[in-house]
Amino acid sequence: MDVKQIAKDTTRVLMSYLTYQAVRTVIAQLNETDPPRAFWLQNFSTRERVQDGELFVRELFQERQDLAFRILTVREHLANEVCEFLPEMVRTGIQQANMQQRRQQLERMTQFDPSTVDTAADSPPEASNESDNS
Amino acid sequence: MDVKQIAKDTTRVLMSYLTYQAVRTVIAQLNETDPPRAFWLQNFSTRERVQDGELFVRELFQERQDLAFRILTVREHLANEVCEFLPEMVRTGIQQANMQQRRQQLERMTQFDPSTVDTAADSPPEASNESDNS
Repeated sequence: MDVKQIAKDTTRVLMSYLTYQAVRTVIAQLNETDPPRAFWLQNFSTRERVQDGELFVRELFQERQDLAFRILTVREHLANEVCEFLPEMVRTGIQQANMQQRRQQLERMTQFDPSTVDTAADSPPEASNESDNS
Repeated sequence: MDVKQIAKDTTRVLMSYLTYQAVRTVIAQLNETDPPRAFWLQNFSTRERVQDGELFVRELFQERQDLAFRILTVREHLANEVCEFLPEMVRTGIQQANMQQRRQQLERMTQFDPSTVDTAADSPPEASNESDNS
């Protein structure tokens, strides 16, 4: 696996996500000080637009330059505040999530072990709404 | 701004993204060793499904337990390999992106500054192919 490329892609995703969080932060601040402006930024920040952080900022610069500058400042601040905690939080988070997933699967396996119901008459207990519409 | 909450949300996004990258890694590996299985996993991993990493793994456990276990292993490995580089990469990335955005905006402002063309007679220097056949 190409760890270097994955690290680069992850960085890009994180940068866009922090831009989105910066937008949310600025909207929350404006809600206190200047509600019409908050409303405008909320409307401007559609889901599609915020997907690509850099494109979003570039478009915002065309419309409301001061808000764009403000978002740049906030996302840099967020990066400085948040990033140092991420490695530990993500590693621990994945370890715990993995442990939980494995435990749940173990419980399912021991509950529904087909080797314990080897006669046709003994139908295994099934979930009533087993959906399989992929 | 609630930095703690943003750090938590960012962690969740990163965990889901690394799960997605683990899925891609396993598909790439299977493409080499077991193409039909790679094809199956590719089809199972729809965009909607992979959005929520934990739900995805849980659903995969119902279908192909071995693949689910494998993805758990790979995402833990990815978290260990990738996370330590992220803080520096994201901070630097955002600093550079901010610099670029500010520079571009500065260029736009100096090119189209209306205050530099305040008299009608004083036309700004224009492209050389201005035909003047009066």
